[in-house]
This record gives sequence, C-alpha cells and structure tokens, in this order.
Amino acid sequence: MSKYWSAVARKLIPYVPGEQPKLSQLVKLNTNENPYPPSERAVAAIAGELGEDGGKLRLYPDPNGDRLKAAIASFYAADGVSAANVFVGNGSDEVLAHVFQALLKHERPILFPDITYSFYPVYCGLYEIEHVAVPLADDFSIVADDYLRPNGGIIFPNPNAPTGRLLPLAEIERIVASNPDSVVVIDEAYIDFAAEAVPTAIPLVARYPNLLVVHTLSKSRSLAGLRVGFAIGDAQLIEALERVKNSFNSYPLDRLAIAGGVAAMNDRVHYDTTRRAVMNSREQLTRDLHSLGFDIVPSAANFIFVRHPQLDAATLASALRERAIIVRHFRLPRIDQYLRITIGTDDQCTALLSALREIL
Amino acid sequence: MSKYWSAVARKLIPYVPGEQPKLSQLVKLNTNENPYPPSERAVAAIAGELGEDGGKLRLYPDPNGDRLKAAIASFYAADGVSAANVFVGNGSDEVLAHVFQALLKHERPILFPDITYSFYPVYCGLYEIEHVAVPLADDFSIVADDYLRPNGGIIFPNPNAPTGRLLPLAEIERIVASNPDSVVVIDEAYIDFAAEAVPTAIPLVARYPNLLVVHTLSKSRSLAGLRVGFAIGDAQLIEALERVKNSFNSYPLDRLAIAGGVAAMNDRVHYDTTRRAVMNSREQLTRDLHSLGFDIVPSAANFIFVRHPQLDAATLASALRERAIIVRHFRLPRIDQYLRITIGTDDQCTALLSALREIL
Repeated sequence: MSKYWSAVARKLIPYVPGEQPKLSQLVKLNTNENPYPPSERAVAAIAGELGEDGGKLRLYPDPNGDRLKAAIASFYAADGVSAANVFVGNGSDEVLAHVFQALLKHERPILFPDITYSFYPVYCGLYEIEHVAVPLADDFSIVADDYLRPNGGIIFPNPNAPTGRLLPLAEIERIVASNPDSVVVIDEAYIDFAAEAVPTAIPLVARYPNLLVVHTLSKSRSLAGLRVGFAIGDAQLIEALERVKNSFNSYPLDRLAIAGGVAAMNDRVHYDTTRRAVMNSREQLTRDLHSLGFDIVPSAANFIFVRHPQLDAATLASALRERAIIVRHFRLPRIDQYLRITIGTDDQCTALLSALREIL
Repeated sequence: MSKYWSAVARKLIPYVPGEQPKLSQLVKLNTNENPYPPSERAVAAIAGELGEDGGKLRLYPDPNGDRLKAAIASFYAADGVSAANVFVGNGSDEVLAHVFQALLKHERPILFPDITYSFYPVYCGLYEIEHVAVPLADDFSIVADDYLRPNGGIIFPNPNAPTGRLLPLAEIERIVASNPDSVVVIDEAYIDFAAEAVPTAIPLVARYPNLLVVHTLSKSRSLAGLRVGFAIGDAQLIEALERVKNSFNSYPLDRLAIAGGVAAMNDRVHYDTTRRAVMNSREQLTRDLHSLGFDIVPSAANFIFVRHPQLDAATLASALRERAIIVRHFRLPRIDQYLRITIGTDDQCTALLSALREIL
C-alpha cells in the first residue's frame, strides 16, 4: 500500500479468477469453459476481419458494436428484443461492473445470495455499494420470498454459481414483479445448459422495465478467450449502461471480438449441438459420480457441485491435481466440503472418473 | 432518465469518440489512426493463436497478460523497466479509467490543461473527482510552473492532444520532482511520433515513484482495432491498478489481443519504419499547408492542429466532408477555429491538399 493509492484502491479485496495454467497437458475442469471449439463460422469471421495484412486493425472498431447488437436482437427476436434492448461489453464481467455502477448503486443495500458468484461483493467494494447476503436454503435453492423486502437492487445467477441450481421462471417473475422500484439482474451465464427449451428470463423483459438479463459468449458459445458478454433489458436500463460505458472506454470490444461474436450468435446449429452434448455429458457424469458415492446438487449448468461423504474436499482437489486434473474448490463457509467440476469432453470425464476410482 | 439510474449515471456527460463511418470510401483523417497496416508478425501471431479451429478461444486468456507485460518490459529494458512496472489494459482508455479511480481520486482536485484529451473530465464525472483546468499559454504550450501548486494528481498528454505540442522532458521532470506527494500521469499516446529519439518519460520512472506513463498500441503500432494499452510506473502504482482491474474485469485482454500485442512490441523494424514514414509525411504536409496559408501548431504527434485565417473551421470541415474527407473539429472555447487533421498516407495527404485547393 502507498500514499498514492486512492481510498477505494486501499480497501479493495479483488476477485481471484480460477487458475489459467500455462501447461496444456492438464485436464482443466476448473473455470467452466466449454470443452468444444467455437463455431467454425465464428473462426472464419475472425479470420476474415483479420484479412491478409491485418489492415482493418489499424482502424478503431465500431464503438457501439451495432452489428453485434443486431445479431443478439435477431437471436431473441421472438421474445420482442430489439437492438435498443441490447448492451454489449468485454465479457459479462465488464457488463456486470457497469450494471453495479449504473443500476445497483442506490440508497438501500442490494440483495444477493450468500453463496453465489464471488465477484458480486467485489463490485460492491469497487463502487462502495452496501449489500445484504441472503442465505440460500439448506438444499442451496434461492428462496424467492427472501427477496420481497426493501432493497436497492437484486442480483443473482440463474442457474446459480457455484451450485448449478436453477430457480424456476415463475419464481424469477415473482421477484421481478414484487420489486417494481428496484432493478432485478438475472445473470444467465449458464442458462443455455439448463434444458432443451432454455428457461431464460429474456421474454419477461418486454413486460418488466426493471428486469435486466446478463449473458456471456464464454460458456455456451465456447468463446471465453474472446471476451464478449451482453445484457438485455428495457431501453432505459440499456441507456444507463451506455452512459457509464461511454464514460469508461469507448471501444471495449475489438474488431475481432465483434466479428466473431456476430457469427457465433448467428450459428444456431453449433450452439444447439454443443449445448446438447454438454447436457448429455452432465447427465452421464452425474450418474457415474452417484455410483462412486458422491452427493450432487442438481445442476442446470455446464458444471456440477459435488461432495463425497467420506473425503475432505480440499484433500480430494489436491489428489486430483496430482493426477493432472484441476477442479475448483472454494474455501468458504457452507461450501468448503464441495468441489465444482466443469463438464468436459467424454474423454475428460473418463479421465476424471479413473482418477477418482484410484483415489477412493 | 429513469428512477432506476444511479446518481452517477444521471450526472454523467459521456465522452463522444470521433466518428467511425461505415463507408470505406472516405479519406478518414479524424481519429488519428495510423495510415499503415500493423506488423506482419502481429498478424501472423493473431492467426496462429486463432488456429485452424479456434480451439484456444474456448479457454479464458491469461488474466494477467504476463507475456504482454514481458514483451513491453523487454522493449523498455534499457530504461530499467521490468514486468512489475507494467500494467496492461483494453486500450489506453481503459488504462486511464483505472488510473483515475486508483491513483487520482484524493482529497484535493487534480490538475490538467484546459485544452487536452476530452476524456479526462469525463473520467472525473464517472469517479466523482474534482478537477481544475489549467489554461495553456496562448501558443498552446503547457506551462510547467502552473502545475507547482497543491493538487490531488496531475495528468496531461505529451505531446498534448488535440494540439500536438510537445513539452520538453526537462519540464516534465520538473513537474514530477516538484510534486512528490501526487501521482503525475504522462499520457504518451503519440510520443513515438515526436522524434527519431523518442523523448518518452519512461526512463524517469526508475527515479520517481510518483510518475506513471501511459502508452497505447493504437497509434504507433497501428492496432486501434485490437484494443491494447499499457502503463509503466513504480511497482506500487502498478499494484493499485491491478487491484482495481481485478475488481472490475479479470480478463480485459482477449487471447488474440495478447498474441498480437506481444508480436507488435517485438517488431521494432515495423515500428521504426512506420513512425518515420508518418513523421516524414507530417513535415511535408506542414510545408504544403503553410503554402496554402494555414497556421499550424508545431506537432510532435501523428496529427496536426491547424487554422486558416480566412476560413471558419466548421465551414471548412463541412466543405472537406462534401469531398469525402473527414477531419475533427471541436466546438470548444479557444479551439473552435482549429481543425485536427490526422497524418494519412501520401495519397491521402495529396487528396486533402487537392480538396483544400478547390475550397480555398
């Protein structure tokens, strides 16, 4: 710490992302990446934007990302979404940061679950926002009734992270409808893995001016390395986000990210094929881990949250790591006996199961 | 405006970037892009990272951008820079945003010139930082003595924008040395175009723990479309920036930007060749515009700031636009009779001169 640091820089407790190891030999099941490569159309679009000599890269990108907004609006056109309902950013983490500053900083504390995405309290620190951590039920489900009280805003992931549990859409709607004076943010990073018919809250946006739904291309579009996220909400909410974004960085999305993002949104076949494959692997892995004695929280995400009654979670994570498999362990109250395991390819799931059979 | 907006979102006056027209037929001299394509090595590195199937894009990038920090440190190794002195971000605009929040938000108002990069007052609005606009001299030079008074921090571009004027390094050092209790930020977006021997303040970093120097790959590396910027300073200053960045977005630089940025920093031949070409074109264009009767502020940047005694600047900008040439005009006090013109290729300079001869 130094005298040059601002008061907020002194107080911060930064977020710690999952490890990104530089060795490529590891079976990497720790940061919920998609095991399949991205859309071939996205790769071709990036190569096309790059061109022979990279000549387009000398020019700034479109600061508004209009093509990307149009592609996202088109994907959700049946839900009544137009480009004015879409905000785009450098991954959903950047989108969320702007959401906290633009829409969740009010007089009253905001509400989010005690077990949830651990970046939320970090944003509260960055923007000096008070929050109340609302306990999940014993089975890790979100209790809608607990969110029907005065607040400065509400945010949670659906399915929740790191538990993977889904809150039914009717409960989401009850929370949104009961809080007309607050913005309710549903962070749907993993929603595309929930079911064949995706239970997204996006169709509710047309009816609720206080609902904002946040998505990412890092998970179901296999583009964690490209940094594209978006939010969908009433045009007034989007305008607040644009104002903050345009006071922070005019061009958060580079030319290659815009080109790849547009093509990825347009490739519905790749999206459906890969998310179905992940859902199938999740069901198989769930059965296999059950047979090894694990307790498994029902998951609607591309990961599962598990514990073994006879094995300490930290010890198990270490034993897996010795076998070149990395999973995520959180040293936090209530969940320190759980591991979060990303759904890998079938080969990766097989490697995980073999390692577990050795350890158990 | 809506009840859902935070107080800060209500008050913001966002930055307005130069137009990015979607037509490619225009002679675009309005946003200080480099007229030459980026390094072939950068293009090859991006293509390599993309690969055949984009498989690496499914994985998050290195959140710390260690390879990029190492490449930047290596470029400035003779100045005593190591990776611990380097911060990287999504363009220098994002770097600057974090600088304002982490290092320029203190009790006292910060100081910057009355005529300068118009994003600075916007950041002050975003982070609720008081500032004092210090008038430039009549010839648009920065007067170092005006910065020797109590302040919460100091920031200015060198060369300044949109004037292009360079402050000699000795004057920079006087400001830095005279303000040991404040962070002094020198925004060197355009410094590589100043002279054959680049008069950067980076060598001073080793001696002054309160000096931070900000650079971008958008200008001298022709990578405006890729979004890469960096800051160099004492490790304690860098740590404050890392804390804020890691409380905002873990991965602001995507895999392709990191790969391209590393290769661009390593390609000194391309860097020297293109910046020399721009400097030569600037000298030629300066002579040609003088002969057409323009007053020209001495420029150390990849643009010139000019006025014509007989022609209103807004009228001239419109007349150029009718001829498919766009330049930047700021409707601001003291400079509303000036145009900022980016140095283009020789063909673009010739097109500009032909159009001006028609208009005059």
